[in-house]
Amino acid sequence: MSTGEVTLVGGGPGQWDLLTIRGMRALEAADVILTDHLGPAAQLTDFLDTSGKELIDVSKLPYGKSVAQERINELIISRAREGKKVVRLKGGDPFVFGRGFEEAQACAAAGIACAVVPGVTSAVSVPAAAGVPVTQRGMTHAFTVVSGHLPPGHPKSLVDWDALARVGGTIVVIMGVRNVAAITAALIASGLAPDTPAAVIQDGETAAQRAFSCDAASLAEVMAANGVAAPAVYVIGEVAGLAHAR
Amino acid sequence: MSTGEVTLVGGGPGQWDLLTIRGMRALEAADVILTDHLGPAAQLTDFLDTSGKELIDVSKLPYGKSVAQERINELIISRAREGKKVVRLKGGDPFVFGRGFEEAQACAAAGIACAVVPGVTSAVSVPAAAGVPVTQRGMTHAFTVVSGHLPPGHPKSLVDWDALARVGGTIVVIMGVRNVAAITAALIASGLAPDTPAAVIQDGETAAQRAFSCDAASLAEVMAANGVAAPAVYVIGEVAGLAHAR
Repeated sequence: MSTGEVTLVGGGPGQWDLLTIRGMRALEAADVILTDHLGPAAQLTDFLDTSGKELIDVSKLPYGKSVAQERINELIISRAREGKKVVRLKGGDPFVFGRGFEEAQACAAAGIACAVVPGVTSAVSVPAAAGVPVTQRGMTHAFTVVSGHLPPGHPKSLVDWDALARVGGTIVVIMGVRNVAAITAALIASGLAPDTPAAVIQDGETAAQRAFSCDAASLAEVMAANGVAAPAVYVIGEVAGLAHAR
Repeated sequence: MSTGEVTLVGGGPGQWDLLTIRGMRALEAADVILTDHLGPAAQLTDFLDTSGKELIDVSKLPYGKSVAQERINELIISRAREGKKVVRLKGGDPFVFGRGFEEAQACAAAGIACAVVPGVTSAVSVPAAAGVPVTQRGMTHAFTVVSGHLPPGHPKSLVDWDALARVGGTIVVIMGVRNVAAITAALIASGLAPDTPAAVIQDGETAAQRAFSCDAASLAEVMAANGVAAPAVYVIGEVAGLAHAR
């Protein structure tokens, strides 16, 4: 039996034309494509001739999260062992909070070649789509991309939010809709100025994009008042004040 | 006189096929392309039919840095005012330490439409090319991308390196070759464990890529011993220990 190959492709933030050329070529050559609900997957049949390709929407796997990841790994490896060219299409960049490296490790453990095609990360491009640059000369020399999945003080949190409040760079929070009140309160309690500009962008780089600008102290309230829901990215820092009026 | 349009295109870290499809289309439609020495500019005539296009290598402008940026802005605006389609091709992503937003602001001030096509940022993709994911589940919930252009303690520095040492996420330093000894010393003095894994990648995502793994305490020495020169990215954090042996 021949052994196939696996390519993890970063699909970018939403619109399919933010795929890289290398990523598109991998999709064109694929026998099997595993997609989830982020990135350009929803448009797949619009921009790609998928006839003869097996498409697997792994976001529909009927399991809990960690079991689903194991099942994704199994699917990737089993299809590769059948000699197929397998593409795992992920939203954004595979190595930015996407569990891509876990999939690469699973391939390595199974002795299967795995290439990674980097993608346009939502952490930078979604703010940009709302006119917010994560850096600006003379204003910030750093930006931190942080998962807001766990609130400050959670026993499993690996982030020192107190230190983060004082780094002095742009703070970009992803997966943080639910915990926005706790996160902004912790940052302000640790010294972040309450009037630091903030911006939130929902469904960035898609037709449904919505964005709101305010300050750190009112961000949670503004998001609640406007019903901002995941997927959303928020930015806290002077750069958020540069956003185009909209 | 008709007014043209300007597109800032993120060219990605090096190889031309990491351009996005949207970026490639903008290049194909352009009348004028302004490039610098980063990203896929060196390969431009290999992947694009440039006949009939004006190519301007702005990295060769014979001025000091800030004057050069003013001159770039002038060139962009003057060509757009001639009714031309102008593409400013930048390495990486336009809004990650690329002065892209300054160019967008210059267009706005001149009343010229300016679109931004995000790109694959070197800050994430160059580590990935050496097998280093900037995040990994259970290991890090954040990563900070920081300019190492100014050393810790410099009067114009906007980064609190002491706080950064304690955030708990991955630290990705760009433009930091010259100041690596001062940066690692400051991080360690502020509590970063000296044996924190580190990796440095020179000329990432190009044919000349070289990478070295070590720990934070020895990073400056390893870089000096191997003659690591710009452009290089270094990563400090547990994820650097995940790098493929190479």
